[in-house]
Amino acid sequence: MPNEESFKTIEGSICAPQGFKAAAVFCDVKRLGTGKGSEKGRKRDLALIVSDASAAVAGMFTTNQVCAAPVKLSASRAAKRFARAIVVNSGNANACTGRRGIADAKRMTETAAAVLKLREADVLVCSTGRIGVLMPMKNVERGIRACAPVLARSATNSRQVAEAIMTTDTCRKEIGIELKIGTSTVRIGGICKGAGMIQPGMAARHATMLAFITTDVAIEPKLLKHALRIAVEQSFDRTTVDGDMSTNDSVIALANGFARNPRIESRQSGSDRDSKFGIFQAALNVTCLELAKMIVRDGEGASRFVALHIHGARNAADAEAAARAIANSSLVKVSWCGGDPNWGRILCALGYSKAKVNESLVDIGYAKPGSREILFAFRRGRPTNLALKTLARVTSAPEFELHVNLHLGRSAFTMWASDLTEDYVAFNKGDVNDPKTLGG
Amino acid sequence: MPNEESFKTIEGSICAPQGFKAAAVFCDVKRLGTGKGSEKGRKRDLALIVSDASAAVAGMFTTNQVCAAPVKLSASRAAKRFARAIVVNSGNANACTGRRGIADAKRMTETAAAVLKLREADVLVCSTGRIGVLMPMKNVERGIRACAPVLARSATNSRQVAEAIMTTDTCRKEIGIELKIGTSTVRIGGICKGAGMIQPGMAARHATMLAFITTDVAIEPKLLKHALRIAVEQSFDRTTVDGDMSTNDSVIALANGFARNPRIESRQSGSDRDSKFGIFQAALNVTCLELAKMIVRDGEGASRFVALHIHGARNAADAEAAARAIANSSLVKVSWCGGDPNWGRILCALGYSKAKVNESLVDIGYAKPGSREILFAFRRGRPTNLALKTLARVTSAPEFELHVNLHLGRSAFTMWASDLTEDYVAFNKGDVNDPKTLGG
Repeated sequence: MPNEESFKTIEGSICAPQGFKAAAVFCDVKRLGTGKGSEKGRKRDLALIVSDASAAVAGMFTTNQVCAAPVKLSASRAAKRFARAIVVNSGNANACTGRRGIADAKRMTETAAAVLKLREADVLVCSTGRIGVLMPMKNVERGIRACAPVLARSATNSRQVAEAIMTTDTCRKEIGIELKIGTSTVRIGGICKGAGMIQPGMAARHATMLAFITTDVAIEPKLLKHALRIAVEQSFDRTTVDGDMSTNDSVIALANGFARNPRIESRQSGSDRDSKFGIFQAALNVTCLELAKMIVRDGEGASRFVALHIHGARNAADAEAAARAIANSSLVKVSWCGGDPNWGRILCALGYSKAKVNESLVDIGYAKPGSREILFAFRRGRPTNLALKTLARVTSAPEFELHVNLHLGRSAFTMWASDLTEDYVAFNKGDVNDPKTLGG
Repeated sequence: MPNEESFKTIEGSICAPQGFKAAAVFCDVKRLGTGKGSEKGRKRDLALIVSDASAAVAGMFTTNQVCAAPVKLSASRAAKRFARAIVVNSGNANACTGRRGIADAKRMTETAAAVLKLREADVLVCSTGRIGVLMPMKNVERGIRACAPVLARSATNSRQVAEAIMTTDTCRKEIGIELKIGTSTVRIGGICKGAGMIQPGMAARHATMLAFITTDVAIEPKLLKHALRIAVEQSFDRTTVDGDMSTNDSVIALANGFARNPRIESRQSGSDRDSKFGIFQAALNVTCLELAKMIVRDGEGASRFVALHIHGARNAADAEAAARAIANSSLVKVSWCGGDPNWGRILCALGYSKAKVNESLVDIGYAKPGSREILFAFRRGRPTNLALKTLARVTSAPEFELHVNLHLGRSAFTMWASDLTEDYVAFNKGDVNDPKTLGG
């Protein structure tokens, strides 16, 4: 939760900001797509998020060369200045579906535009679910038409949309924040989904994760794009569940100006947290980071949540390389599963990372979340005398911090990662005797 | 097994070549180091491999920046032209052990040299096992002294040495090959160990794997080094179990000339398989490749062995990048565990690899080992109509081939990989309630 005094968390997530309506319905894509949910009945799988007026738009998308049809379409539409609506389905990713997939994604926006009486170009589309299966367009179009009449600005509707975008998620992921810009009350709402195929890299490099952010702030579209990039780089792009980057990752923000704050038209001193832009950026950062952490905590089969802090790297690239090597090492992640303070595997991962490492300088320590007391397992190249039992008390908790200091410079990097468990394997392996569990 | 008509497989592995003796004893490092084996009694954990006369030496070692003390010492000794003996222990890796570790590694070679009446500089040392624990030198020295009197050139002894280097291995890994160079009979023997922390990168980049190769060929030391580098690049460096590169990986070859073949003194046309060098290189390649495959087949918790062939890459670097992205993707490896022909995850991994990929050109297919019939799941950017059941018959076998053609060029790359299973996690996670299972 945001610990900034200037923010207040609020209910209603994407429906909290003024001028946004949302709705979600059942159209049986999820049932058709994954073979799941048929026992427990139908699950919501199609949603609309609509601004009452033209909104500044920003989007960040997977950098995977193999990206889904809706990503291609929405990326081009998010590159413009304004948009009005997002149509999203779960159960089918519309990825690896060729020209037909592109046509289907476009058709989804056409249908939404028609029922909402908007321009098609003002509608973005996202899909998540099974790869390589054509969209059941009859269901999807029926769903879009069913969705429009039930659009409302309510906490119930935002919750239902958060549910409708879930695939392997075990819980809904929502946040709402209220802040002041000048004397105006500004609200930011966000929802996201994602549990596996998670190592987003939207900004520079490389999850199936979707996030939708609505805000009533008045802001120039190019500044919204800038702010979203910064926020995503510092949140979603610093998380990893399994190190795989999805074909469908998308973060889309809409800002409709209904807050009537003094319009944010320049970055001024962007680093100045007291500037209008600075205040908004800080709030957007918190929104994205809290959503990103929810994804890691709900990682497929995950039993532990680790905040990994690299300190003392030679430069920023080294700090990041060191963090990613550790956070993506199968052996390290499995040791976390066992609650094992296994610094040997961490040191090994550091050694093969592209970061410069001098074994004789390295510190490796563990801490309870938010604690200032770091228990060092390895210090300046030598195992400490700290009992394994003492360390394991920290590392066997559901959440802990890992601190690594390379003592070679002043650069730092933080990542949030889950462990690798038997449940992750069981969940993702499928069963050759049950074709519904294969593929996708 | 080598399918070259010019080679014959023989018994006795490292004791098959003339002029080599070996022995292995119990000195309780393995019991002390891992807490394992105590129930089933003692396990051999210390071995000597000795040439009766000065032998050309070559070594390839981990490129991990955090490398163990014996690696540092043996790398410097393998850089010279000749050596006589290797001392090796399992149960303790002598890694992350600081200056004391370096002194202990040196002491092991001193002790071996003394009992064998050799120069210390002619003895190399390797260790594998737990990281970050000081070597129990009393046990180790007692072991070395006990080993020397039982040195012999026998298949029993070579088998015992192959056992003594095992850690998490479930089976011994040995090979022996006989070939003709001119009219001379030349023999190559090899043993190796390794099951986890496997993605060797000795040549250029980045397992705990140890391999020892003996041969009675007469060859110039610099040509042995050249041949070993080529053989390792095409074998051990193309395998992956978990993508982690160990601190201790080492491959050491000794060639003592007892075969009295016309000495290999130049590469001539190295690519000419009929040259003396070419014949030896081909035999060494087979030796290393067969050993490397044994490691992948015995991967920790592994249930499947996949030969992954990339074709049609734009260039060699792209072919390798594509192969490594697939072979190290958690989601792909988990799908193999389930016997799932999940081409969507493969395409996703290709997309985030550094290789240039054009989705609309890609072919993905499966074949039985050695079969010329590739069953395509995805062809030229589109799913084929082949039934999942048909594909799964191939991918649910213990071994299968995966063929990916990028259709962007003429470069190819092959890797051998295992799957990621619940057993891998269970095996490596440790148990906080049983400190013996933690660390290392």
